[in-house]
Amino acid sequence: MTLSNEGKKMILALQFVSGYGGEFRSWRLPGASADAYTNMDYQVSIAKKAEEGKFHMIFSADTPALTNDLSNQSPMHQMDPLVSFAAFARETNNIGLVSTVSTTHSYPYNTARTMKTLDVMSGGRIGWNAVSSSMGGVAENFGTRMLPRETRYDMAYEAIEAVQTLWGSFGEGAMVLNKKTGEYADMSKVSYANYNGEYFKTKGPLPIPASPQGQPPIFQAGGGEKGIEMAGKYASGVYANPYTIADAKMHRSALHESAERHGRSGEDIKMLAGFMFTIGDTEEEALERRRQIMDYAPEMETAQRVQYLGMMVNLRISINDININQPLPQELVRQTSPNMMDPRAERVMELIQKGLSVKDILAHGVINYHPVVAGTAVQVADFLEKWFTSGATDGFSIVPDSLHDGVEKFVEQVIPILQERGLFHKDYEGPTLRENMGVPYQYGVR
Amino acid sequence: MTLSNEGKKMILALQFVSGYGGEFRSWRLPGASADAYTNMDYQVSIAKKAEEGKFHMIFSADTPALTNDLSNQSPMHQMDPLVSFAAFARETNNIGLVSTVSTTHSYPYNTARTMKTLDVMSGGRIGWNAVSSSMGGVAENFGTRMLPRETRYDMAYEAIEAVQTLWGSFGEGAMVLNKKTGEYADMSKVSYANYNGEYFKTKGPLPIPASPQGQPPIFQAGGGEKGIEMAGKYASGVYANPYTIADAKMHRSALHESAERHGRSGEDIKMLAGFMFTIGDTEEEALERRRQIMDYAPEMETAQRVQYLGMMVNLRISINDININQPLPQELVRQTSPNMMDPRAERVMELIQKGLSVKDILAHGVINYHPVVAGTAVQVADFLEKWFTSGATDGFSIVPDSLHDGVEKFVEQVIPILQERGLFHKDYEGPTLRENMGVPYQYGVR
Ligand SMILES: Cc1cc2nc3c(=O)[nH]c(=O)nc-3n(C[C@H](O)[C@H](O)[C@H](O)COP(=O)(O)O)c2cc1C
Ligand SMILES: Cc1cc2nc3c(=O)[nH]c(=O)nc-3n(C[C@H](O)[C@H](O)[C@H](O)COP(=O)(O)O)c2cc1C
Repeated sequence: MTLSNEGKKMILALQFVSGYGGEFRSWRLPGASADAYTNMDYQVSIAKKAEEGKFHMIFSADTPALTNDLSNQSPMHQMDPLVSFAAFARETNNIGLVSTVSTTHSYPYNTARTMKTLDVMSGGRIGWNAVSSSMGGVAENFGTRMLPRETRYDMAYEAIEAVQTLWGSFGEGAMVLNKKTGEYADMSKVSYANYNGEYFKTKGPLPIPASPQGQPPIFQAGGGEKGIEMAGKYASGVYANPYTIADAKMHRSALHESAERHGRSGEDIKMLAGFMFTIGDTEEEALERRRQIMDYAPEMETAQRVQYLGMMVNLRISINDININQPLPQELVRQTSPNMMDPRAERVMELIQKGLSVKDILAHGVINYHPVVAGTAVQVADFLEKWFTSGATDGFSIVPDSLHDGVEKFVEQVIPILQERGLFHKDYEGPTLRENMGVPYQYGVR
Repeated sequence: MTLSNEGKKMILALQFVSGYGGEFRSWRLPGASADAYTNMDYQVSIAKKAEEGKFHMIFSADTPALTNDLSNQSPMHQMDPLVSFAAFARETNNIGLVSTVSTTHSYPYNTARTMKTLDVMSGGRIGWNAVSSSMGGVAENFGTRMLPRETRYDMAYEAIEAVQTLWGSFGEGAMVLNKKTGEYADMSKVSYANYNGEYFKTKGPLPIPASPQGQPPIFQAGGGEKGIEMAGKYASGVYANPYTIADAKMHRSALHESAERHGRSGEDIKMLAGFMFTIGDTEEEALERRRQIMDYAPEMETAQRVQYLGMMVNLRISINDININQPLPQELVRQTSPNMMDPRAERVMELIQKGLSVKDILAHGVINYHPVVAGTAVQVADFLEKWFTSGATDGFSIVPDSLHDGVEKFVEQVIPILQERGLFHKDYEGPTLRENMGVPYQYGVR
């Protein structure tokens, strides 16, 4: 299998997080909207800015539960991403809108109905990230306990098929609206869904017509054998979090193979790699901003991060033993070696060699969930180019540290570079998410 | 118990139906938007017009199922009322937005989350019509059979309490957003819901702050002992369908008594009586429009209506035996008497005595679900005044035959009359639905 992006352009998703950004204390930054979580004017302004930059889509991860301590951090997710999407659908024209909706904790009829309504209302711009909700605390909000992975995935398959069957139940062309003859709908094109699974049953029909893209494409998030298998069967897009190009290639290959096992083409699944950034006019300015965000954290947390950093290079260090504003002392540097369990360790070694202070190494985001670039717009563009041209991924799911100026900086500084280099489209290919992603039209179950 | 409206003003709700109106073939009228169901620009324009008229609220009844034959009729409900409400919330400023969400077929966590998000986003303008979904075909969309009434109401009580507990779980003042101290939320004001019912369990918390009205008020729809009992415990508003002033007074008294049994004041529950109208410059013009809508119906349906009309006055008649464009022949008129089972029969007798043609009697809406006035704006205002000043109801839930011009006519012609007569407010009392309805603030379970 060859993974090539020759002649192609990258796909970009903006992770909306909770309206603040990937750094959960960035709400404290000067200029940031502390109330982004509840401020819909602000959220819409971010969506518009992303559209100005021709982002293919906004992606809202979601979990129906409070999943972090809000004492000093902003929430991980929106109040309700689909409510925000209704506003975005009205106030933007081209950008896709992809949200997670749990396959475990929502009735297929309700999921199908709300997402299809949004799809019709947005002119075919909605996508469904179908996840089984594995986070702790979620099941308890629905009166159950977390189910075994096997069961969650069995349910997810059923949920997707039930939803797609409902979507297809109001056939294409069923809306007639002929005032002269009085025919409102052609009921011969409307059929029961009669979906009868082990976990989900639904009769239908769902009385909502096809959108310009037929129905929302399915997305899948995360790796794991089960996830990749499910993606091969259903997904048009995958949100992945590879830390290295090698990881990404493995994941992308596995997705292509899975698609082919299910009678589809690897090209039908677009992988989007998570990527976080802080843009400054200089690398030092970007680092300074990340140091600032680090300073918002309680000391305890910084202590833990220092300890964790040590583990990545097989060192036992404590914040009490070292000066984090200094490089590691030479005798410690000599003892370092990359921890083979962690793909991010090589990057840490590199920065230690360069003689950066411990704080600056952390500021570079080496222990973040995603690869991070703290630097100039050119450095960010270089990173994306390198990954993309190596064939590692179809695109990126980018997470600004803080949306309040991060989206603007990316749109105004990084995107023009990517466009100039021929790596990113200059305009939307069409009005629907499927057209912009380059994935086939679909209506009903495949 | 005295039911008086002295010194009060009536509350008005606009029933949104599916975007078309109370007559399901009105989509064929010249000037009507045949695509109102999917056309969000149009729907928003109706919401704005209603707000211009100072309507207290839009009310969207809802059932998660296709409940009528769409061959020549528009659907009974919207694609998804909460999606439309997100748009209305953004594009209006004062009007309340009340939707049905099933207490049987939605998880309390999901209901609580979406409604509270809308409530925050709209600045405190959302209401929840909590109904147990008794319509055929609904349960099958959720893989079950229709439950006995008893069970449905037990579940409804639990659903409301679970939702209200979740609403209250993120305490007032919990959002701090202090950039200086770094405190995002005061977690001592956030608590688990730990709702543990027989049908619904949910742990929470739901991380959404209070809206300016605390949380959405509860509405209840329909009469029946169980419904009235539930309203007394929870509801701030009730959608009722009395056909006569006497019916309405009985219903309103029952609601007041029920409220008092639950330690509340009768004044805390506002009853809104359903009412349909067609406005013309003359009564004849209004009737002509209703004849036109009747002509859109298949002959079979008109035949059934004629037969049904006969039954209301204890006559066996068939469309084949009479000329519906003529008054009933005198020998038939002599045989009529009001069917005591039907509160609408008196009105039919009256119109027969007046010598109207059978078609015109039907055109007056005598066998409609709601009382109907087909006439001038003054006639409509007179009807509302008579009911209101008699103390029959706190207000009305009005249903135009067709929204496309019916809302405009009501706003431009009827409302000024009501205002002049001192029966309707001239402006919104405040920014929230609770303030406009005159019902107390509430947060969490009472
Ligand atoms: C980029 C990315 C995005 C994800 N988004 C979500 C999400 O929105 N909601 C969620 O509950 N889980 C999300 N997950 C978690 C995965 O769906 C998955 O549950 C996780 O990888 C654990 O795998 P398992 O479910 O096979 O146990 C995400 C994971 C990744 C890598
Ligand atoms: C004005 C009015 C509005 C109603 N709205 C709804 C609605 O939106 N959805 C629904 O399923 N039922 C609705 N109903 C039905 C009632 O909630 C109730 O189910 C019905 O009166 C039957 O009573 P029962 O549930 O006690 O059997 C409405 C009834 C009335 C009179």
